Amino acid sequence: MLPTNVSIFEVGARDGLQNEVSVPTEAKIALIEQLADAGVKRIEAASFVSPKWVPQMADSSAVLHGIKRQQGVVYSALTPNLKGLELAIAAGADEVAIFGAASQSFSQKNINCSIEESIERFIPLMDMAKQRNIAVRGYVSCVLGCPYKGEIKASEVARVSEILYKMGCYEISLGDTIGIGTANNARRMLETVAELVPIDKLALHFHDTYGQALANIQACLPTGISVFDSSVAGLGGCPYAKGASGNLASEDLIYMLHGMGIDTGIDLTKLIQAGKNISQALGRMSASKVANALG
Amino acid sequence: MLPTNVSIFEVGARDGLQNEVSVPTEAKIALIEQLADAGVKRIEAASFVSPKWVPQMADSSAVLHGIKRQQGVVYSALTPNLKGLELAIAAGADEVAIFGAASQSFSQKNINCSIEESIERFIPLMDMAKQRNIAVRGYVSCVLGCPYKGEIKASEVARVSEILYKMGCYEISLGDTIGIGTANNARRMLETVAELVPIDKLALHFHDTYGQALANIQACLPTGISVFDSSVAGLGGCPYAKGASGNLASEDLIYMLHGMGIDTGIDLTKLIQAGKNISQALGRMSASKVANALG
Repeated sequence: MLPTNVSIFEVGARDGLQNEVSVPTEAKIALIEQLADAGVKRIEAASFVSPKWVPQMADSSAVLHGIKRQQGVVYSALTPNLKGLELAIAAGADEVAIFGAASQSFSQKNINCSIEESIERFIPLMDMAKQRNIAVRGYVSCVLGCPYKGEIKASEVARVSEILYKMGCYEISLGDTIGIGTANNARRMLETVAELVPIDKLALHFHDTYGQALANIQACLPTGISVFDSSVAGLGGCPYAKGASGNLASEDLIYMLHGMGIDTGIDLTKLIQAGKNISQALGRMSASKVANALG
Repeated sequence: MLPTNVSIFEVGARDGLQNEVSVPTEAKIALIEQLADAGVKRIEAASFVSPKWVPQMADSSAVLHGIKRQQGVVYSALTPNLKGLELAIAAGADEVAIFGAASQSFSQKNINCSIEESIERFIPLMDMAKQRNIAVRGYVSCVLGCPYKGEIKASEVARVSEILYKMGCYEISLGDTIGIGTANNARRMLETVAELVPIDKLALHFHDTYGQALANIQACLPTGISVFDSSVAGLGGCPYAKGASGNLASEDLIYMLHGMGIDTGIDLTKLIQAGKNISQALGRMSASKVANALG
């Protein structure tokens, strides 16, 4: 059974733009407001990772303070630690996200600690989030492969996902960080995780680096999964640059879902326009095929 | 049940390059030879449509005469009429293809006659092909939509496909010419056609204009379909140009199939190199995401 409607978690303004050099704060604010106007209900808007590491997101407080809020829209922020959470709450984030990995090598190279240590560090953050009544989303990266270690066992993805879920994350987003997964593996991984975490608490965050994201989602839809992360205009996934992160373009995903009669609540025409505006601000073509075909 | 192996019908050297301005004959020959070296067994190599209409293919005889043939590889040519067939046979084509449409409007605008008239014209061609023992493949275009008329009924696709099949075409390739189809429609269309033409006599020719080709193939695989048309380096489908034909890149398709444990008999590394070589000859980046990610 396919879902009749799905929830899109829009990551372009954070996951996308953090791969860009110096995007003006005004352009970020405009993008987030236009996404909400298009009917997007869940928007990753900011990151409170140290500006030493991600200077592109140093204006996150200004962005969250600057946007005109729309009712019913959740504005989310990435928070690696307690300090990040405090800043996110002060800036008015509605919810936050923490970032774990299913690969020890990736965890070491990316956040400089083991999977277990990273989880240790989340405990005070989860405690404070609970006190402040802030929902926490959990990301698990490298779910279909690791750039350093290669193959990742689905059982390991399931183990880490379950830990984050039991710590209190309301939803676990499973990220194919390097985009190498194919359909059968994607579905098997998802089904393995769903043995430990309810499927309605899971999201898929697939990258299109190898052009597989939509095919993988297509293969996973029958499991009942109904939350997908994607990035307007494919932000963060410039198809022209080698090694680009390859975010799946929201427009291409939504075109597929609407074509299948699956509702997203999003106005595709308005979303395409939002993507065109930010692409123009960045001085490049959209990485969404749908946007380019219809534009 | 998914197939354990599939057949790739490589269209880059014809369907792809005919959208390019002045590709040297030597580059075409090199491409075709490299495709065969990579293990591709079915190569659309030439077109005998009048050079008045498609000047890019005027060197088709020279191409077919110029290639070093590999045993077990079928070199195919597009032939719109009896004269084209004669030229194709004289040039040594192993098989030929005829081109019908599931849309009256497209047939009128593209080949200047009704669907019925186009089929009439194929009769003498089919007769001669039979006499000369040349296999004929049938293309049906616009199977998921028409640029002029919009929606196309699956029953109409099935009707035209059955006519071509009964006329003697050994295989019918169903083309989503404008690439607008999505997964459920694609599968429904295929299942409708398969009621009149055996599934093992059908092929899918999906375009990636809206990024849907692989997702559509993914949705169709459980029907038992096991022949797919695609274009090395996505030739003919430049992602940077609006209105480009959007051929599905063979590399992306084969990456998916191999990832699913489905055999194609093709060496992906060699195929990527063939695609890189022709892309370089054309002075542009490959339109294959896999080629760009791995290259």
